[in-house]
Amino acid sequence: MSNTIKRVAVLTSGGDAPGMNAAIRAVVRSCAYHNLECVGIYRGLQGLIEGDFELLGPRSVKNIINRGGTFLKSARSQEFRTKEGRQKAYDHLKNAKIDAMVVIGGDGTFTGANIFINEFDFPIVGLPGTIDNDINGTDFTIGYDTALNTVVEAIDKIRDTANSHNRLFLVEVMGRDAGDIALNAGIGAGAEEILIPEENMGKDRLISSLKRSKKSGKSSSIVVVAEGDQIGKNILGLADYIRKHLDEYEVKVTVLGHIQRGGSPSCYDRVLASRLGVGAIDALLDGQQGVMIGISHNKIVRVPFEEAIKGENKIDQDLIRVADITSV
Amino acid sequence: MSNTIKRVAVLTSGGDAPGMNAAIRAVVRSCAYHNLECVGIYRGLQGLIEGDFELLGPRSVKNIINRGGTFLKSARSQEFRTKEGRQKAYDHLKNAKIDAMVVIGGDGTFTGANIFINEFDFPIVGLPGTIDNDINGTDFTIGYDTALNTVVEAIDKIRDTANSHNRLFLVEVMGRDAGDIALNAGIGAGAEEILIPEENMGKDRLISSLKRSKKSGKSSSIVVVAEGDQIGKNILGLADYIRKHLDEYEVKVTVLGHIQRGGSPSCYDRVLASRLGVGAIDALLDGQQGVMIGISHNKIVRVPFEEAIKGENKIDQDLIRVADITSV
Amino acid sequence: MSNTIKRVAVLTSGGDAPGMNAAIRAVVRSCAYHNLECVGIYRGLQGLIEGDFELLGPRSVKNIINRGGTFLKSARSQEFRTKEGRQKAYDHLKNAKIDAMVVIGGDGTFTGANIFINEFDFPIVGLPGTIDNDINGTDFTIGYDTALNTVVEAIDKIRDTANSHNRLFLVEVMGRDAGDIALNAGIGAGAEEILIPEENMGKDRLISSLKRSKKSGKSSSIVVVAEGDQIGKNILGLADYIRKHLDEYEVKVTVLGHIQRGGSPSCYDRVLASRLGVGAIDALLDGQQGVMIGISHNKIVRVPFEEAIKGENKIDQDLIRVADITSV
Amino acid sequence: MSNTIKRVAVLTSGGDAPGMNAAIRAVVRSCAYHNLECVGIYRGLQGLIEGDFELLGPRSVKNIINRGGTFLKSARSQEFRTKEGRQKAYDHLKNAKIDAMVVIGGDGTFTGANIFINEFDFPIVGLPGTIDNDINGTDFTIGYDTALNTVVEAIDKIRDTANSHNRLFLVEVMGRDAGDIALNAGIGAGAEEILIPEENMGKDRLISSLKRSKKSGKSSSIVVVAEGDQIGKNILGLADYIRKHLDEYEVKVTVLGHIQRGGSPSCYDRVLASRLGVGAIDALLDGQQGVMIGISHNKIVRVPFEEAIKGENKIDQDLIRVADITSV
Repeated sequence: MSNTIKRVAVLTSGGDAPGMNAAIRAVVRSCAYHNLECVGIYRGLQGLIEGDFELLGPRSVKNIINRGGTFLKSARSQEFRTKEGRQKAYDHLKNAKIDAMVVIGGDGTFTGANIFINEFDFPIVGLPGTIDNDINGTDFTIGYDTALNTVVEAIDKIRDTANSHNRLFLVEVMGRDAGDIALNAGIGAGAEEILIPEENMGKDRLISSLKRSKKSGKSSSIVVVAEGDQIGKNILGLADYIRKHLDEYEVKVTVLGHIQRGGSPSCYDRVLASRLGVGAIDALLDGQQGVMIGISHNKIVRVPFEEAIKGENKIDQDLIRVADITSV
Repeated sequence: MSNTIKRVAVLTSGGDAPGMNAAIRAVVRSCAYHNLECVGIYRGLQGLIEGDFELLGPRSVKNIINRGGTFLKSARSQEFRTKEGRQKAYDHLKNAKIDAMVVIGGDGTFTGANIFINEFDFPIVGLPGTIDNDINGTDFTIGYDTALNTVVEAIDKIRDTANSHNRLFLVEVMGRDAGDIALNAGIGAGAEEILIPEENMGKDRLISSLKRSKKSGKSSSIVVVAEGDQIGKNILGLADYIRKHLDEYEVKVTVLGHIQRGGSPSCYDRVLASRLGVGAIDALLDGQQGVMIGISHNKIVRVPFEEAIKGENKIDQDLIRVADITSV
Repeated sequence: MSNTIKRVAVLTSGGDAPGMNAAIRAVVRSCAYHNLECVGIYRGLQGLIEGDFELLGPRSVKNIINRGGTFLKSARSQEFRTKEGRQKAYDHLKNAKIDAMVVIGGDGTFTGANIFINEFDFPIVGLPGTIDNDINGTDFTIGYDTALNTVVEAIDKIRDTANSHNRLFLVEVMGRDAGDIALNAGIGAGAEEILIPEENMGKDRLISSLKRSKKSGKSSSIVVVAEGDQIGKNILGLADYIRKHLDEYEVKVTVLGHIQRGGSPSCYDRVLASRLGVGAIDALLDGQQGVMIGISHNKIVRVPFEEAIKGENKIDQDLIRVADITSV
Repeated sequence: MSNTIKRVAVLTSGGDAPGMNAAIRAVVRSCAYHNLECVGIYRGLQGLIEGDFELLGPRSVKNIINRGGTFLKSARSQEFRTKEGRQKAYDHLKNAKIDAMVVIGGDGTFTGANIFINEFDFPIVGLPGTIDNDINGTDFTIGYDTALNTVVEAIDKIRDTANSHNRLFLVEVMGRDAGDIALNAGIGAGAEEILIPEENMGKDRLISSLKRSKKSGKSSSIVVVAEGDQIGKNILGLADYIRKHLDEYEVKVTVLGHIQRGGSPSCYDRVLASRLGVGAIDALLDGQQGVMIGISHNKIVRVPFEEAIKGENKIDQDLIRVADITSV
């Protein structure tokens, strides 16, 4: 019951994402608004096991809404996968008189949280914080919109030099299992081709498509490759293959890497993180646990962790068609 | 019927918005994809009346997806409000053997297009291009997301100097009738107060709220003001009023102005514009006319112009609550 | 003598400028490097009078090199202009066992510091921190390069919308006495005309020049106006005058305002601030006082305060010629 | 003699750099200003050999001052290294009645131009356009300042995620022979260590320095590596070595790659390019040839090609010291 909640903990876990700070801020200030105490836990589930706690007031989170990363830091914890680890975590929560917890992270975080809830009947709600947008039940995850802008701005720069030299660039972006970043950023950057894990283009189709686009008068070419794509996984090998079968361009490779995880969050991510953070405390005060706070058609929703982590990613076929059409 | 369409015109009208170029590009390339000819009309409805046309191929729109503004230029046309003006427009379309038209703009544009359709039974579909997000039936308009990022980045800069000097800044943003930009950018920028046309805060409540936030330990303050807000309309007068009733801060005013209309579009706006542009040609080929192509819960929708221009703007009360909570 | 210095204070004073944090960081870390203690003084000379001090170690200044503003805050102090105020300041320094001080600010700061040195024979060196680049003896001041980029990026956005609508924009930029920002940002933004305090263009010459440039085929026009320019001071009046005498464009006004003071510093400003901060401690350890650390032809120089504040700004006639030529 | 010059050609050659468009624009408009005709040559020296020319008027270069890359495109030409190739080039120039030429590029371009001048006594002046800042006789090359900002912004993003996870990042930046980008961007980004070709740090010194910095309380670490550095050349091998000898951090590698060549030029690069472009036509009208137009202590200078291409890069020891001190 909500009236028993007096002190709420918050942590960030898994890969960091822009907007996590905005989410923490919203949780902390929503606690203050509802006269709850708020405890920040450093370094995610590992810090929970080690009792790395700090009391946070509304002024503790000033001037962080615009900052990338997470000031509570994040970590992956092997120890939390053990019963002993989780018991330590529970003991720290009890000792600190913490009644409920908000965890910000991805499916690994929600999976761990769910086990913990089942073992200790401890109220936890989750916020989807990951640039990959691979969580079920929410239209957007915190950090995804910012990552798209980062990728598009980077490819805009690469396009400048590609155009100047009539080159073909393979640009690797994040996405081991999900092609959302590649597909959306590819359309946004005006890429000629987009390779994603969910679809297998085949090298030959790629080559003939690139030849066709060269013939149609294009002087440079950008191929966006999700890191988990079948033929793009080995991006240097793919570059060699293209060099062998396509004389038309000089071929270059750029791996965007970790710049995609950082940067000041976009307005959308800041607002989303703020809404979800407020929604997390609302849910806890409603007596909820084991749910992720998400957004669906611009409304806050509560999604059971089981559903959120289902996660077979379905790519929007409409977007693939848009990519094909707008790159003619 | 769709099979009669061989040549499609495209124009941008009303205030320009980032992403209009991406929308034009998508229309042009979608025409090429469907083996239709595409004619660009310069300077909106006025250029239509004057027959300022140019044939556009897929290469005509290269390297514009990342550019603000509209390379077809835009204008407001008094002449199009007259029967004579519209007759001239129709004659030019007929002479140029144009069978259908895509207009990119706001409610004024759709209103004019609707009259034209009724008079001449000419197939027109519309795309919502305006930073104000004040069109009914679409979750987002082209340019809105970019404008939010521009505003938030500007206020981030102002916050730097506000913090350094313990100042209060009134920041005026666009929004004559709609508070969407003010409310979302205000939340995203961590504003202490947000004044919007849809709600009347009252000067006294503003003053007492600012006093309270100062007492809670804040050392600077940002008040985001939509240009159409009741007490914010006269922003210099409001600044004087605050100076008179609030000793705690030095008060400064910044009017963001037209920087909000420009800039390279965000990834979201580029993808949105690309999808809507493709959707426009799809609709014309389906024999549609008098509809706006919009987005609703991430799906392309067709909205009759009559409905799109209804436009009493409803502000999301949930967002107002989030603004209140996250600024404590 | 240098060997008597054990504890150094640092403060920022006057208008804030991007890169001040980088300068503080360099001072603090240079102290650590030389085994000196470092004391941060909040709110400039006023905080000095009030004894608002904090000991700063190398980790106190982590993650601030990329932040606009000054975390030590800044203020203008009337009290420091009085003998009593300065006496209080001196007493605080003595009580806190501070042996020397680095002040970061503009000519007002240096003037105050000079009086203080003369009264108390207390070692002070200064760093030029102001976006106005109006300090004698240094090629660049901290914050100037960033402000130029901010202005140019803002005008790029305005150009997008100016082009789309065939408009003329008057854009007011900072510079009450110095036209450096207007002139350089004007060239960088490709402005058609630039109005600066150092030169009096006259309204008629402006009008005829704008007419000529319209005739040469330009479809929009940007006039950059330094706030201290003779005819640009009253920018709304100037806009009206242009409207009356020039039919060719719709005329709009944008005042960039305080966004020019904020923002993440450019690489140049960060490196400059780092070099000057290191140079400040070097100078104090060399037994210097009453000098500003500046940069001249990429070398660190020491400039007596008297010389630094001379400051009749000489505009580079070569730049005016470049502006004229590149805007044909 | 200057009075014989009626038609001037301009081309960009070698690797592209932000600001090249601004330089072309200044050359074109300076020609117009002096009533000279201007011919753009596409694809550098190769396009010269092939006669790929276009007449450029002042309106041909509108709206390009803010664009990365070079709209004239660039290329490397093997053929220009042959006597036959150069003869073809000369014939094209004569046929097109071109009297003089401005080449924008790096030392390879100047070397080729010098041979051409000696063979054909044809007036050529050069502008230093390269992000590497490795040209003798000019303080800055066009594109260098922008590249520094691009690198610093990218590392700011990487720092966000490095901080969140307590990681060490090796960040490879451009600089095969010159450490200027690495050193300046490293200082600007607050890097813990900077590896440059001009200095050999040695792996052991690197490891012990990183250990020391960890001990001093740092929670993450950025090592900026110029691609030509001795131990950094094999950056993946270096990462493995660090992993083996340093337990304190998780080690990650990011290669920034071609994003460093693109992007909208900074204000400094735009002004520099504008000044040098104007200076190039001034020099030709003064009867000069075989000189590069450079900037030295903010004044335009003319440097014989022989001197400009000397290019043993001397790293500023003062900067290395600043890097050491500010990273304590």
